[in-house]
Amino acid sequence: MLRIFQAVQQGRLSPRAAARQLDWMPFADLGFARVDVDRGRRTMVPEVVLCQGKTLDQAEAIIRSLFRHNRRALATRAPEALHARLLATGVPASYDPVSRILTAGTFRPAPRGTVGVLCAGTGDIPVAEEAARTAEFIGVKVRRRYDVGVAGLHRLLAARRVLTSSDALVVVAGMEGALPSVVGGMVAAPIIAVPTSVGYGASYRGLAALLAMMNSCAPGVAVVNIDNGFGAGYLAARIARRRRRA
Amino acid sequence: MLRIFQAVQQGRLSPRAAARQLDWMPFADLGFARVDVDRGRRTMVPEVVLCQGKTLDQAEAIIRSLFRHNRRALATRAPEALHARLLATGVPASYDPVSRILTAGTFRPAPRGTVGVLCAGTGDIPVAEEAARTAEFIGVKVRRRYDVGVAGLHRLLAARRVLTSSDALVVVAGMEGALPSVVGGMVAAPIIAVPTSVGYGASYRGLAALLAMMNSCAPGVAVVNIDNGFGAGYLAARIARRRRRA
Amino acid sequence: MLRIFQAVQQGRLSPRAAARQLDWMPFADLGFARVDVDRGRRTMVPEVVLCQGKTLDQAEAIIRSLFRHNRRALATRAPEALHARLLATGVPASYDPVSRILTAGTFRPAPRGTVGVLCAGTGDIPVAEEAARTAEFIGVKVRRRYDVGVAGLHRLLAARRVLTSSDALVVVAGMEGALPSVVGGMVAAPIIAVPTSVGYGASYRGLAALLAMMNSCAPGVAVVNIDNGFGAGYLAARIARRRRRA
Amino acid sequence: MLRIFQAVQQGRLSPRAAARQLDWMPFADLGFARVDVDRGRRTMVPEVVLCQGKTLDQAEAIIRSLFRHNRRALATRAPEALHARLLATGVPASYDPVSRILTAGTFRPAPRGTVGVLCAGTGDIPVAEEAARTAEFIGVKVRRRYDVGVAGLHRLLAARRVLTSSDALVVVAGMEGALPSVVGGMVAAPIIAVPTSVGYGASYRGLAALLAMMNSCAPGVAVVNIDNGFGAGYLAARIARRRRRA
Amino acid sequence: MLRIFQAVQQGRLSPRAAARQLDWMPFADLGFARVDVDRGRRTMVPEVVLCQGKTLDQAEAIIRSLFRHNRRALATRAPEALHARLLATGVPASYDPVSRILTAGTFRPAPRGTVGVLCAGTGDIPVAEEAARTAEFIGVKVRRRYDVGVAGLHRLLAARRVLTSSDALVVVAGMEGALPSVVGGMVAAPIIAVPTSVGYGASYRGLAALLAMMNSCAPGVAVVNIDNGFGAGYLAARIARRRRRA
Amino acid sequence: MLRIFQAVQQGRLSPRAAARQLDWMPFADLGFARVDVDRGRRTMVPEVVLCQGKTLDQAEAIIRSLFRHNRRALATRAPEALHARLLATGVPASYDPVSRILTAGTFRPAPRGTVGVLCAGTGDIPVAEEAARTAEFIGVKVRRRYDVGVAGLHRLLAARRVLTSSDALVVVAGMEGALPSVVGGMVAAPIIAVPTSVGYGASYRGLAALLAMMNSCAPGVAVVNIDNGFGAGYLAARIARRRRRA
Amino acid sequence: MLRIFQAVQQGRLSPRAAARQLDWMPFADLGFARVDVDRGRRTMVPEVVLCQGKTLDQAEAIIRSLFRHNRRALATRAPEALHARLLATGVPASYDPVSRILTAGTFRPAPRGTVGVLCAGTGDIPVAEEAARTAEFIGVKVRRRYDVGVAGLHRLLAARRVLTSSDALVVVAGMEGALPSVVGGMVAAPIIAVPTSVGYGASYRGLAALLAMMNSCAPGVAVVNIDNGFGAGYLAARIARRRRRA
Amino acid sequence: MLRIFQAVQQGRLSPRAAARQLDWMPFADLGFARVDVDRGRRTMVPEVVLCQGKTLDQAEAIIRSLFRHNRRALATRAPEALHARLLATGVPASYDPVSRILTAGTFRPAPRGTVGVLCAGTGDIPVAEEAARTAEFIGVKVRRRYDVGVAGLHRLLAARRVLTSSDALVVVAGMEGALPSVVGGMVAAPIIAVPTSVGYGASYRGLAALLAMMNSCAPGVAVVNIDNGFGAGYLAARIARRRRRA
Repeated sequence: MLRIFQAVQQGRLSPRAAARQLDWMPFADLGFARVDVDRGRRTMVPEVVLCQGKTLDQAEAIIRSLFRHNRRALATRAPEALHARLLATGVPASYDPVSRILTAGTFRPAPRGTVGVLCAGTGDIPVAEEAARTAEFIGVKVRRRYDVGVAGLHRLLAARRVLTSSDALVVVAGMEGALPSVVGGMVAAPIIAVPTSVGYGASYRGLAALLAMMNSCAPGVAVVNIDNGFGAGYLAARIARRRRRA
Repeated sequence: MLRIFQAVQQGRLSPRAAARQLDWMPFADLGFARVDVDRGRRTMVPEVVLCQGKTLDQAEAIIRSLFRHNRRALATRAPEALHARLLATGVPASYDPVSRILTAGTFRPAPRGTVGVLCAGTGDIPVAEEAARTAEFIGVKVRRRYDVGVAGLHRLLAARRVLTSSDALVVVAGMEGALPSVVGGMVAAPIIAVPTSVGYGASYRGLAALLAMMNSCAPGVAVVNIDNGFGAGYLAARIARRRRRA
Repeated sequence: MLRIFQAVQQGRLSPRAAARQLDWMPFADLGFARVDVDRGRRTMVPEVVLCQGKTLDQAEAIIRSLFRHNRRALATRAPEALHARLLATGVPASYDPVSRILTAGTFRPAPRGTVGVLCAGTGDIPVAEEAARTAEFIGVKVRRRYDVGVAGLHRLLAARRVLTSSDALVVVAGMEGALPSVVGGMVAAPIIAVPTSVGYGASYRGLAALLAMMNSCAPGVAVVNIDNGFGAGYLAARIARRRRRA
Repeated sequence: MLRIFQAVQQGRLSPRAAARQLDWMPFADLGFARVDVDRGRRTMVPEVVLCQGKTLDQAEAIIRSLFRHNRRALATRAPEALHARLLATGVPASYDPVSRILTAGTFRPAPRGTVGVLCAGTGDIPVAEEAARTAEFIGVKVRRRYDVGVAGLHRLLAARRVLTSSDALVVVAGMEGALPSVVGGMVAAPIIAVPTSVGYGASYRGLAALLAMMNSCAPGVAVVNIDNGFGAGYLAARIARRRRRA
Repeated sequence: MLRIFQAVQQGRLSPRAAARQLDWMPFADLGFARVDVDRGRRTMVPEVVLCQGKTLDQAEAIIRSLFRHNRRALATRAPEALHARLLATGVPASYDPVSRILTAGTFRPAPRGTVGVLCAGTGDIPVAEEAARTAEFIGVKVRRRYDVGVAGLHRLLAARRVLTSSDALVVVAGMEGALPSVVGGMVAAPIIAVPTSVGYGASYRGLAALLAMMNSCAPGVAVVNIDNGFGAGYLAARIARRRRRA
Repeated sequence: MLRIFQAVQQGRLSPRAAARQLDWMPFADLGFARVDVDRGRRTMVPEVVLCQGKTLDQAEAIIRSLFRHNRRALATRAPEALHARLLATGVPASYDPVSRILTAGTFRPAPRGTVGVLCAGTGDIPVAEEAARTAEFIGVKVRRRYDVGVAGLHRLLAARRVLTSSDALVVVAGMEGALPSVVGGMVAAPIIAVPTSVGYGASYRGLAALLAMMNSCAPGVAVVNIDNGFGAGYLAARIARRRRRA
Repeated sequence: MLRIFQAVQQGRLSPRAAARQLDWMPFADLGFARVDVDRGRRTMVPEVVLCQGKTLDQAEAIIRSLFRHNRRALATRAPEALHARLLATGVPASYDPVSRILTAGTFRPAPRGTVGVLCAGTGDIPVAEEAARTAEFIGVKVRRRYDVGVAGLHRLLAARRVLTSSDALVVVAGMEGALPSVVGGMVAAPIIAVPTSVGYGASYRGLAALLAMMNSCAPGVAVVNIDNGFGAGYLAARIARRRRRA
Repeated sequence: MLRIFQAVQQGRLSPRAAARQLDWMPFADLGFARVDVDRGRRTMVPEVVLCQGKTLDQAEAIIRSLFRHNRRALATRAPEALHARLLATGVPASYDPVSRILTAGTFRPAPRGTVGVLCAGTGDIPVAEEAARTAEFIGVKVRRRYDVGVAGLHRLLAARRVLTSSDALVVVAGMEGALPSVVGGMVAAPIIAVPTSVGYGASYRGLAALLAMMNSCAPGVAVVNIDNGFGAGYLAARIARRRRRA
C-alpha cells in the first residue's frame, strides 16, 4: 500500500485511480442503507437486494438507487406490492410470484455458458426458480429439470443430457437432501447444492438436508444456505460465464 | 384380568398357567442384573447382552446365565477378553473381531427367509457385520453387499438381485446416509436403515445420516440407532422369518 | 449390465423387457412434477402424494395422474378443499378430517395380514389414524387401541390380544415416547414406532420422543419421522402382507 | 431488614443473633476455596465436595476443613488416591469404588424414613449407588432394586413392595429413560429421576433420557442432572426424613 | 405373582381383591380416550387432564368422566370455552384465566402442609399460578411470593419467612433461571424448579433456564419440564402432604 | 457483616444507614411485581422495564411506579398502545416505533462520553436504535453508522472517524456476524457485539451470529443476547460515562 | 432409455457403447470395497481414498487397485505408515505430514488455471494444505496466502493480487469464520469456503465457522464440510480447469 | 479515502503518514504466520498468541517475532515446554502452570485502574487466573475473590468491597453460571462474564453457563467465549485503563 501512496505522491497515479485500485469506491448513502453501487465493477455483478427484513419503503429506495446507477437491479424474496410500486413510478420491473424474484430494467447480458437447475420435489420449485432466474439475470442459459428425486432414479436418468452438458449445476433438495450425492457421482461439472426447508418433523426446516449435503460422499459438491436459491444461481452463473470467457 | 383371576378361582386355570398367560415369568437374579431368561418365550428371541457399559465379570455372568437357560447366547460390542474367559471355562463360544459379536452355544436354528445387508462404504462394515451375524444367529440366510454407496450407482445396480430377492433389507450408511432413499425407490421389501458414525465434521457422529434416513423421500424405510447393527439385524430377521412361517 | 445389452443385441431380450428389467419405467411429466406412475409395479404400492408444500393445483393434478394410471390414489396431509375439488370433477374420493387422509378410487385390495395400531394419548390419534388408514389402503386388517400410555399400564394390558395377534405393530407416542419400549418387551411382532409432536417445552416437537424410541432398550423397534403415521402404516402393512403371501 | 437493624439498635437483638437470622455465617477461607462450613446449620446437611475438577490437594484440604467443623464429610466422584491420603493422615474415611463415594467420619445419624433406589440396567448401577450412599449418609434407610428396566416389566413388578412402601423413590435410567414414567403411574411417592449417560449413538450421553424424563406423562416426577446420583439421593433423603420428623 | 394366583386358587383371596392388589383397575373407555378413573386410588391424586392437544369435545368428555367417578377434576391449559360448556351442562366448575386452570367439583380436601411458590419475574406468574392452584387442589396451604428475581436480592430476602417455613418450595424462573440456585443455598426444604419460556433470543424458549436449573450448584433442587407449573405444584403438594400425615 | 451489626449496636451506625450499606433497600410491591425502585442508587441507572411478556396493565403500573420514584423511566419492546395510555394519564412519554423504546419523563442527564453504534445491514436498524436510544437515556453522546457490513469494506472505512473517537462501540450484526471481528482489529475501544435474528435458514434466528461473535479472533469483544440492543447500549454507555468521570 | 435399448437391438449401438452411455462401468471388487476405477472417465478425476475409518490393509489395497487402473492415486487423512508400506512394495508415493496427503504415481497433468488458497490463522494450515495439494494433483497452479485473518485486514490486502487473479478461491477459516465474507465482497472469482475445527468453547469444533460461512452476506460463497480441505481443493480445481479448457 | 489520496498528491500528507492514517501497517511474514506486529499501535495492546492449535516451533517463532518488535509478549494456553525453550534461548519469560499464561519480557506498564476478578468455584480458578494475569500484563491492578458461588451468598457478600470499588469486573462461573446475574444486580461497574466448561452432564461443557449469562436479567453484563479468561481480562483491563486516562 505504501507503494500506491508513493505513486500518488510522485504523480504516477491519480488519486481517483489509486482509490479504484484499492477497489473501494463511494456508495450511495440513503441514511438507513449505504448502497454498494460500485459492487458491479468489483465483482462483475451488481449488488442484489434481499427484501426480507426490510420495509417496503426501504426496499424500494434501494432498488431505485441501484437502478439509477446500473440501469438494472435484482431483488429476492420481494413482496408482490413492491412490484406494483415500482411500476407505478415508472421503473420497468417484472415479477415472478413463485420465486418472488423481482427484476428492474430491461437490459439483459448475452448469455454465456449453461447452468442446469435440478430439484428433487415439487415443493422445492420456488427455490429452484430463484436460482434459475438469478442465473438468467447474470447472463447464462438455464436448463431446468424439476421433480427428479432419488426415490425414482429413472426420472433423474431422463435428465442425463442436462447433467452432462452444463457448465455448472444447481441441485435443490429438501427432506433427506440425497440428490447432490447421486448427481455428484455421475458428472464432472461443479455442483452447488441448495438444501430447502421442505419436509417436516426431523427435517428441522432444512437442517437434515444441509447436513446431508455437507457430508456428500461424492466430491465436487459445495453447499449454500437453506432456501438460498439466489446464492446458488449466482455462484453457478459466475462459474459458467467464466468458462466461456476464456 | 378379572376374568383370569376368576378362572383361577374356579379351578379352570392353574396358577402357573395364569402367570404364564400374563407373560410375566421369573428371571435370574444375579444381584447386579435380573436376567430376563424368559424373553425367548415371549418374543421368540433370547435376551441379547450389550457388553458396553458392563464389567467383564458382569458380562460373563449374564452370558453364563442365559446360556444355562437357553443353551445359546448372543453378546454385542464384546471385548476380545470375554471370549477367552468363556472358552477357558468350557462355554463353547465364537467371536468375530470386526463386528465384536460373540456367540455362545453351537445350536443354530434352521434358516427361514433371506435378509440382504448392504453398506455404503468400507468404514461401515463393522456395523453391517453386526447386523448380518445377528440375523444369522436368529436364523435367516444373509446376503451381503458392501461398499455400494450412491456416489457410484453402478455398484448398487450390480447388487440388484440381492435387493429384489430378499424378504427384508438392512441398509447401513454413514456420512450423508443417502443409500436407504435410493434403495427404497427400487424395491418392495421392508428396509431397516442404520446410520453409522462414519464421517467427520458436520456428520456429527452419525446425526447427519440419522436425520437423512428419518426424512427419506422413499416410503418403506424405518431407522434404528446410530451404529445399531444389532437392532437392524434383529428386526430384519424377525420380519424375514415371519414371512416363511405362514 | 453389459450382459443385458448383449442379450438385447442378440435378440434374446426385447428393448422394453430390458428396460423393465432395470426397473426404470417412464413417468408422467406434468412440468412441475414427474409422477412416478410406475412405482406400483416396482414397489407394489402406488406413489403416495404428500400434499404439504404443494399448491392445491399441483396436488390435484398429481392425484389425477396417478388415478388415471392406477385407478386409485392416496394423499396425505390433504387439505379439505382438495376433496371438494376432486369430487366436483368426478373423481370418487373420500376424506378423513382427523388424519387428513384422502383416497381416490373405490378399489380396495383384499386384506392380507393384520396390523395393530396403538397410541399413547388422545392427542396422538391423528397420527395413528394416518397410519391405520394408510395400512388399510395398502390392504391389511387394522386393529386400533388408542390412549394406552404407560402411566396407566392396565390400559395397555387390556390391549394384550391385539399385541400378540398382529403381524406388525405401529406404536405412536409423543412426550417421552416410552410406549414402544414397553410393548417391545412384550411381543414378538416387528414394531414401527412413530414419535409425535404432542407435548410442550422440552419435548421439542417430538425430538424427545424420537430420541427415546431410537434408544429403546427393547430390540425389534425401528423408528420413522416425527408425525409420520403414513410411513409407519405403509411399512407395517408391507410387512404384514408379505407374511401371508408365502 | 430495617426492623432487624432497629432491633439491634434497641438492644433487643444481639449482633450475632442478627447475623444468624440472616443465615449468613462465616466460612473457612482456604485461599482457593471458601468452605461453607455453616451450610449444615442452614440446610440441615453439611456441604458436599464434588471432587471432579479439583486437584487432589484441593479436595483433601476442603474435606479436612469440613471434617474439622462437622466431624463428618461426604465427597463424590472421588479418586481412589484421595482415600489413601486421608487414611494416611488419620482421617477415618471409607470409600466405595463403584460409586466413587468417599465418606469421612464415623458418626451416622439414626435413619428416619425410607428411600427406594431403582435402576433400569446394570450399567446404571454406579449412579444408583451414588444416590443410595448419599441418602444413607444423610440418614435414611435405603432399599435397592437394580436392573428392572421396562423391556421386562415382570422384573419391575417383583419390586412392587419397594415401590409402594418408600417415602421417596430415586429412579435411575439411561438410554430411553422410560422407567420413571412407568413407575410414576404406579405409586404415590415422589419420584426423583436421574438420567444416565449409559447408551450410545443417539442417546447423546444421557440427553435422550433427560428429555424423556422431563416429558414424563406421569406426574410426580422431577429430574436432576445426567449422572447426578448424588443430587437425587440428597433430595430423596431430605423428603423422606421430613416426613417422619413431623 | 405366582403366590397371588395360588392364594386365589386356595380361596384366600377373592379375584377382585387380587386384581386390586396388582393395582390394575378398569378404566372408562371413551373410544378416543381410556380415562384412568382409578388413578386416584393408586397415586392418591385423580388423573389430571392436559387440555392442550385435545379438542373441546374430547376434553369435556374426559372431565365429565373423571367428575362422575371422583366428584372432582382438574384440567390444565384449559381454554375458556371449556368452562362455559361445563357450566352450561350443570358441572360446577371454576376457571382462572391467568393460569388457565379449570377445576370441577366443590369438594376440597383439608389442607395439610405448606408449599411456597416463588417466581423470578412478572412474566412467570401464569406458570407459578398453575403450580399454586394445582397444589391447592391437591390439598395444601400455598404461600406466593412473585417477582423476587436475583437481580434485586433484597426482594428475595423479604420473602425469607416463606422460604424457611414451607414444607416444599416451587421456584419458577425464565431467562437465566438462577433463582433456584440462590434459594437452594438458603433453605432446607426440597425445591422443585420450573423453567419458563419467558425470555427471548438465546433463552431458546426456556432451554437456558432448564439447563441452568439442571446444573444448580446447590443440592436439593430437581427440575420439571419448561412451563410445567402443574407438575411442580403436584409434586410439591405431595411432598408437603406426606410430611404432615406421619 | 457482624461488624456492621456491632456498629449498629454501639450506635455508631443508624439502622437506615446500615441497611443502605448493604445496598438492600425497599421496593414497591405491586402484587404482581416488586419494583426495584432503589436500583438507580445501587447501579447508577434506574430499573428498565422489558414490556415483552407483561400485560399492558402490568407494564403501565410498573412504569408509573418507577416514574413516581425516579421522575423518569425507560421501557423496551413497548407496544404502541402503552404510549397512548401513559399520555392519556398525564405521564410525559415519548415513543420510537422503530426501536419500540418508550421513555417517560423529560429529565435527561448531561451526556458524558461518546458511544458509536454500528450495524451491518438495514434489517439490523431496530436493534441498533434500541441500543442508541438506551445509551442516550443513560447519558452519552451517540454516533450512528448503519449498513456498514463487511461485504463492502469501503462503507466501514468511511466510518473510521466514529470508530476511533468513541469511548465504546456497539456493533450490531445478523447473518454471519462478522462485523465485530473486523472492527475489533481496527480500534482500541471496548466493543459490545449484538447478534440479531436477521437472516434465514442456517442463521437460526441469530445463533450463527452469536457463535461467530463469541469466537471473534479479535480480542476486546464481548457479546450480549440476540436482539438485545438495550443491554449493549446500557453497558456501552456505562463504560463511556465512567471514563469521563475520572 | 428405451431408445438406447432399441438402438442396441437395431445394431446402431454396441452393447459396450450403450453401457458407457449410461456411464455405468465395472468396478474392482475387493470384497470389502468396490473400487470405482471408472470414476475418472465419468467425472474427470479418479476416485480419491479417504483413509480415515479404513484399516491400513484396506487403504493400501484400494490405493493399489486405483494405481493399477489409473497409474496415479490420491489419498487423504493418510497415516504415515501407509506411505512406508507403499514404498516398500514399489509404488512410487510421496507424503506430506502437515496435510496428511499421500499421492501415488509420478504423472502430473499440465496445470490449467489458477486457484488461490487463503487461510485465516496458523492453525488452519493443515486444512489449507490439503486443499492446495488436492488442487495441484488435479492439475492447477496454486497460490497460497496463509494467516490473513480479518483481525488484521492489512494482511489480507497484501494478498490482493492473489485474490483478483485466481480463477477460483479456497478460503479456510476456523473460529468465527468471517474471512470468506470479507473476501467475497472484494472479488469476482467463485469462493469455496472451508470451516475448520480450530477454536475452542463455543466454536463447537467448527460449527460456528460453518454457520457463519453459510450465512455469508457476500454472494458467491459456497461451503464444504468442516476440515474438508480436499473437497474444496477438488471443486476449486475443477472450476479453474474448466475455464481454461474452453 | 479520495481525500486522503488527494492530500498525498498535493504533498499535504506523506505516503507513510497516509498509510498510517489508514491504520494498515506491515506485518512480519514468517511463512506460516503473518505476525501483526503493528497491532499494539492500532489497539494499544500487542497481538497475543493463542498457543493451542500451533506447533511448538510455530508458537516460539511468533513470540520471538513479537518480542523483537514490542520487547514483550503474552501467550495463552502455553505448554510448559515453550517456557523452557524461550529461556534456553535467552528470552526472559515467566510461566504460570495454573493459567498456562506465558509472558516474555520484563517491562510492565504502570497499572491504571482496578479490575476485580471473581469466580464461583475452585474448578474455575485456571480461567480466572488467565483473566487476572492478562489484565495485569495490560496494566491494571487486579483484586481476586475466588469460590464465591451463589449457593453460599455470604461468601459473595464478604467480597462486597471488591465489587463496589473496581472499575470493571470479570465474573467467572461454570455449571449454571448464575454469579454474573447476582453480581449484576449489586454493582454499577461493567461486568464481563466468562462461562467455563466446569460441570458435567447437562452443563454441556459450558453451554449451560453461556446461555444463562447471555440471558442475565441484570443489565450491564456481556459475555465472552467459554473458558476465555484471556478475552475477559483483556476487555476489562481496557475498560479500567480508559477510565483513569481521562
